[in-house]
Amino acid sequence: MGLMGETVTEIVIPVAAVIGIGFALVQWFLVSKVRVSIDSGVKNGYNDRLIEDEEENVDSQEVVVKCAEIQSAISVGATSFLFTEYKYLGVFTVVFGVIIFLFLGSVKGFSTASEPCTYNKEKLCKPALANALFTTIAFLLGAVTSVLSGFLGMKIATYANARTTLEARKGVGKAFITAFRSGAVMGFLLAANGLLVLYISINLFGLYYGDDWEGLYESITGYGLGGSSMALFGRVGGGIYTKAADVGADLVGKVERNIPEDDPRNPAVIADNVGDNVGDIAGMGSDLFGSYAESSCAALFVASISSFGITHDLSAMLYPLIISSMGIIVCLITTLFATDIFEIKSVSQIEPALKRQLLISTILMTIGIAIITFIALPSKFTIFDFGAEKTVKNWHLFFCVSIGLWAGLVIGYITEYYTSNAYSPVQDVADSCRTGAATNVIFGLALGYKSVIIPIFAIAIAIYVSFSLAAMYGIAVAALGMLSTIATGLAIDAYGPISDNAGGIAEMAGMSHKIRERTDALDAAGNTTAAIGKGFAIGSAALVSLALFGAFVSRAGLKTVDVLTPKVFVGLIVGAMLPYWFSAMTMKSVGSAALKMVEEVRRQFNTIPGLMEGTTKPDYANCVKISTDASLKEMIPPGALVMLTPLIAGTFFGVETLAGVLAGSLVSGVQVAISASNTGGAWDNAKKYIEAGASDHARTLGPKGSDPHKAAVIGDTIGDPLKDTSGPSLNILIKLMAVESLVFAPFFATHGGLIFKWL
Amino acid sequence: MGLMGETVTEIVIPVAAVIGIGFALVQWFLVSKVRVSIDSGVKNGYNDRLIEDEEENVDSQEVVVKCAEIQSAISVGATSFLFTEYKYLGVFTVVFGVIIFLFLGSVKGFSTASEPCTYNKEKLCKPALANALFTTIAFLLGAVTSVLSGFLGMKIATYANARTTLEARKGVGKAFITAFRSGAVMGFLLAANGLLVLYISINLFGLYYGDDWEGLYESITGYGLGGSSMALFGRVGGGIYTKAADVGADLVGKVERNIPEDDPRNPAVIADNVGDNVGDIAGMGSDLFGSYAESSCAALFVASISSFGITHDLSAMLYPLIISSMGIIVCLITTLFATDIFEIKSVSQIEPALKRQLLISTILMTIGIAIITFIALPSKFTIFDFGAEKTVKNWHLFFCVSIGLWAGLVIGYITEYYTSNAYSPVQDVADSCRTGAATNVIFGLALGYKSVIIPIFAIAIAIYVSFSLAAMYGIAVAALGMLSTIATGLAIDAYGPISDNAGGIAEMAGMSHKIRERTDALDAAGNTTAAIGKGFAIGSAALVSLALFGAFVSRAGLKTVDVLTPKVFVGLIVGAMLPYWFSAMTMKSVGSAALKMVEEVRRQFNTIPGLMEGTTKPDYANCVKISTDASLKEMIPPGALVMLTPLIAGTFFGVETLAGVLAGSLVSGVQVAISASNTGGAWDNAKKYIEAGASDHARTLGPKGSDPHKAAVIGDTIGDPLKDTSGPSLNILIKLMAVESLVFAPFFATHGGLIFKWL
Repeated sequence: MGLMGETVTEIVIPVAAVIGIGFALVQWFLVSKVRVSIDSGVKNGYNDRLIEDEEENVDSQEVVVKCAEIQSAISVGATSFLFTEYKYLGVFTVVFGVIIFLFLGSVKGFSTASEPCTYNKEKLCKPALANALFTTIAFLLGAVTSVLSGFLGMKIATYANARTTLEARKGVGKAFITAFRSGAVMGFLLAANGLLVLYISINLFGLYYGDDWEGLYESITGYGLGGSSMALFGRVGGGIYTKAADVGADLVGKVERNIPEDDPRNPAVIADNVGDNVGDIAGMGSDLFGSYAESSCAALFVASISSFGITHDLSAMLYPLIISSMGIIVCLITTLFATDIFEIKSVSQIEPALKRQLLISTILMTIGIAIITFIALPSKFTIFDFGAEKTVKNWHLFFCVSIGLWAGLVIGYITEYYTSNAYSPVQDVADSCRTGAATNVIFGLALGYKSVIIPIFAIAIAIYVSFSLAAMYGIAVAALGMLSTIATGLAIDAYGPISDNAGGIAEMAGMSHKIRERTDALDAAGNTTAAIGKGFAIGSAALVSLALFGAFVSRAGLKTVDVLTPKVFVGLIVGAMLPYWFSAMTMKSVGSAALKMVEEVRRQFNTIPGLMEGTTKPDYANCVKISTDASLKEMIPPGALVMLTPLIAGTFFGVETLAGVLAGSLVSGVQVAISASNTGGAWDNAKKYIEAGASDHARTLGPKGSDPHKAAVIGDTIGDPLKDTSGPSLNILIKLMAVESLVFAPFFATHGGLIFKWL
Repeated sequence: MGLMGETVTEIVIPVAAVIGIGFALVQWFLVSKVRVSIDSGVKNGYNDRLIEDEEENVDSQEVVVKCAEIQSAISVGATSFLFTEYKYLGVFTVVFGVIIFLFLGSVKGFSTASEPCTYNKEKLCKPALANALFTTIAFLLGAVTSVLSGFLGMKIATYANARTTLEARKGVGKAFITAFRSGAVMGFLLAANGLLVLYISINLFGLYYGDDWEGLYESITGYGLGGSSMALFGRVGGGIYTKAADVGADLVGKVERNIPEDDPRNPAVIADNVGDNVGDIAGMGSDLFGSYAESSCAALFVASISSFGITHDLSAMLYPLIISSMGIIVCLITTLFATDIFEIKSVSQIEPALKRQLLISTILMTIGIAIITFIALPSKFTIFDFGAEKTVKNWHLFFCVSIGLWAGLVIGYITEYYTSNAYSPVQDVADSCRTGAATNVIFGLALGYKSVIIPIFAIAIAIYVSFSLAAMYGIAVAALGMLSTIATGLAIDAYGPISDNAGGIAEMAGMSHKIRERTDALDAAGNTTAAIGKGFAIGSAALVSLALFGAFVSRAGLKTVDVLTPKVFVGLIVGAMLPYWFSAMTMKSVGSAALKMVEEVRRQFNTIPGLMEGTTKPDYANCVKISTDASLKEMIPPGALVMLTPLIAGTFFGVETLAGVLAGSLVSGVQVAISASNTGGAWDNAKKYIEAGASDHARTLGPKGSDPHKAAVIGDTIGDPLKDTSGPSLNILIKLMAVESLVFAPFFATHGGLIFKWL
């Protein structure tokens, strides 16, 4: 037994979660002090006088009114899209919940009799029917929590965007803090919420399951499935939405009509800004929540069949949740460094400040891991290793969690190197625009491919160390280690689209050039942090899927997954193909939806008199509707591909082939995802590099409208679906197929492999 | 024992090879009847009067002289590049030969004592030192044969290109036959040559090895390694050469100066045409020769440790070579259908004629396989299946070979569907050019990803069936089945670049628009067939690598390759990354080399007076030199990556990790390769679709110089390195790493895994 007693454990976890939620609410309150109100006479912001009020016209009350209007339009658009999306998801959730119940219930023919436990044959466990029911409930809980996470994130982001714009009038530092605080609201709410719901579920389920921990944690895996399946549709639907609007707006606005980005004359501009919130915020939130839920479930499941589970050592058993609890506290301290300890005074300090957040949280968390590992875990214990037993010491687990955490940092920093325009890779891509769009694309693709190398080695080392030390449990806690600083990661990540929106609002409200420059600087840093966030999401997805894969293999009763058997190899090569199939679907969807948007925007420019002159308002709502309809229609085929593949492979080809499919899609998908995200990020920042013209080299390529800049815009547009739709959705593909396989493993093991049974 | 006696086997194989060579010489003779001579007074061609002599000026003797000059310039350029390349390859071959000898000799400490055989412990086999020596010799033989194959192909192609141009004056049918016959010369020479050298080597090595077949066929694997390592440099070097020239010529010529493709004023035009011959012809020839040599070696090696090897059943043992012998005969008959039985009368008949070749050869070969399977193989025999023994019936092998053959046909047809502009996928890509280059690129990438699906299922089914029926021997013969019609495949494939060159020569010689239209039509069909050829090369590479992988695992003494061990999984994920690393290198190389070419072409246009007006000749030689230097310099890093990875992985991390690396690079590389080739092919044909304007839809996008056409040109340029450099080189990456691992397996098994031994 570890030093930490059961009672302490039972207190520490919910308290940490509640602290996280409280901290989020405090941040929200601070953000809310910036007033965006049409109500006159109310003092604005921190009661400071506006520092620069020399630009009178643009800083008047009128601007505040405009900002409030635009913010409200974005918020209404985003809310209405999400509600429509949730209607679809509601239907899906009910149908899939029934499938889970029926499939899992059928494992023992819907019998209500207790069964001997799988890993401890002497004891009786609850009937398979109960597991089916509780898995379904956990699935619903996961789905609801995921949706809530995405929705809250979107609400905060649309609440914060105009406030960031208004604060930008006072200087870049104030704007940064507003955007960053809002990101933190989302990060902490999500991390704490996920932890709390999981903790409560375990305790409530425990009332029924009693000391049948095997059944309890088997059922809890449904939580991960629910979280991730919502994330899939959120990412794909949101990703298609945002990029259809963005690409459509750019193709007509920037390329054909030569009007700047976010110009209010562009009919697709509101849809574009809504897209940032539903894709990058709500989608990302659901995605990382899914990763978090899945890695917790994988770790809990593997722990339940280790000696913790057998000997009922609660503190050790809940070690995964204790890691997350410590993570919330560490991130809280880390956030204070950005918001209260250091102050941002100039544009050049933004990126270092964000990078420092990553470093501080990683260092503090390493100490935190050491503490909890030694007090929560017994000094020695055994875990299940595919049929064999493996003895593990507690300091082994310290290394497993830490290596995951540090691998995440390495991935983050490498991603920054390849996507920030402060370094040579992006500058080379920008330079290649001299000879046109073709070389820009060739260099950009090559950059994305190259950026895969170090992250893969980092992931491989993390896998090797944690796998060797503690088998699949090691992998699961390494994934949790990488995700333990999720609150900070999400804060950094959400900061990006908030700044992007803030810039859009400044442009639309007709604010001065100076304000726009400040929000642009925030946004450029946001592009890089978005890439870092995606790097994290992908790296953790790789570890999570491997942990889930291991849990699936254990639960399906496989002792080996031998590449030298035809069933496995065929699964492997087909699995490696799935990311391509999926990307083909999502990219084509973005392309088609963007074409529709282009037609609508062109139609409005051509038929609405006075639009180009700015005397008439465009029909924003129609563009919002086009994006909404297209994304909801187009998200179904890729969603079906991901959800059906494990069911088909498992039912018809059996667990060996399915294991091959999971391994293949994991090792192939992670490469496609990283290269797609980084290629897109690099193109975006290469364009920004030329536009900003901050160095002699950059000025030889610019200004806006020059041939190299036009080539860079083409690259940026190509990168949009790569970095915001297909790339990040692939994380979910690999994770979701694994967690789905884990949940359905008993069914596949009992009834699966129909084709081979017939042959 | 099968029905076919040893004597018959010993006669049949060399006779088939000699027939193949004879047939190639006859075709060459027929092509040579078209005179390209500056000598006046000699009647030209088949003594027909020129059918259309209304265009007097352009058909005069002067044109023939010009054609002869250009042909000679291309031939000189290609020969000089290849000789320079061979100097580098010579050094590499000697160094690597020494490495092979030292590594393999060290397995038993350079002892000259005989050893007990691995699979038949009662017998004595030749010493490891002898195997080291003979493997080195086989390696050298393979290298020489590969280089010879590429060189001969190039010679024939540069001999045929001007002849095709001249025949185009008489009509499209005559031109087609000339180009196709020339392709057939290459196809038959290569297939027959490969078979003959292998057959002679086996017999000569047999003089020493006697009845130690295990050692004999182990040594023969060096032949595959030699063939493939030359192919690597041929593909990569040639690929960089051709695309640097092509991209460089297009970027300045077409985009900046607005002069047509192949215009003699463009200084890079000769380099571009040389590139087609060294990249698409010599590189492709070496590549497919390598596949053929490797799959034969894999099949022979696996057979030698089956009951054929133990009971010394020569006919059954040489079954792989008998398949190839039958293939030569079948292809010979198939070729007659194209050259003598059906006649091409119009442009629209070209593509169907080429497709018919594939179908006829597949149907005939299926019958051929049935015949040889039943007469060469005993009705029942056992093969080695990773430690176990497996009983196989002869009709099982019929299915194995046939399914490989038919999977090849499916891949070919699917590739055609996705890359020919007769079908909707390419037309959709062309249509997306309406909204600019960005949507063109997005749709093109999505098309490439999508085109992976069916080929992967075809490969998966072929693998499953042949693996289940006859383990790794089944896979090896399935690969041979796919490659059995290699002579026809290569004829179709070589036809493409020959027609491309013919078009270039017509343009440069200032021939009439009509002639150019005919060669363009030949070329458009050639683009599709090139894609089909690449599809074949990739499909067969997948099967070949898997067979080699199986042979490696057997030779290394592994019983399982379990994904659930950290060593294997880490290998798997790193292996899956290698194709990206490799592609990043090759694409960046093409980009950099193209930039150098762009600068040189610009410099010439800016500094040579009268160049644009056509009164002065450009300095072609300088462009040839730039391509040569860049490609030779740039081919070394990717070459080193491929050659060193197995050595490093095997020596430091051991055979399990290496097995993971091979499996990972196989399942990931095949997807990258297929999607890259097809994306590139589709962009090229989308551009041609707009240029040709053959339908109402196409005409709304054109003509040349319209905005959609410009967008299509950008796509085409991006596709160049994808389809001709990185994509096809990936076949070699996956095959070569596997065959190298196979050759070095005894060394890795004895001395490998240093890092884990140290830890």
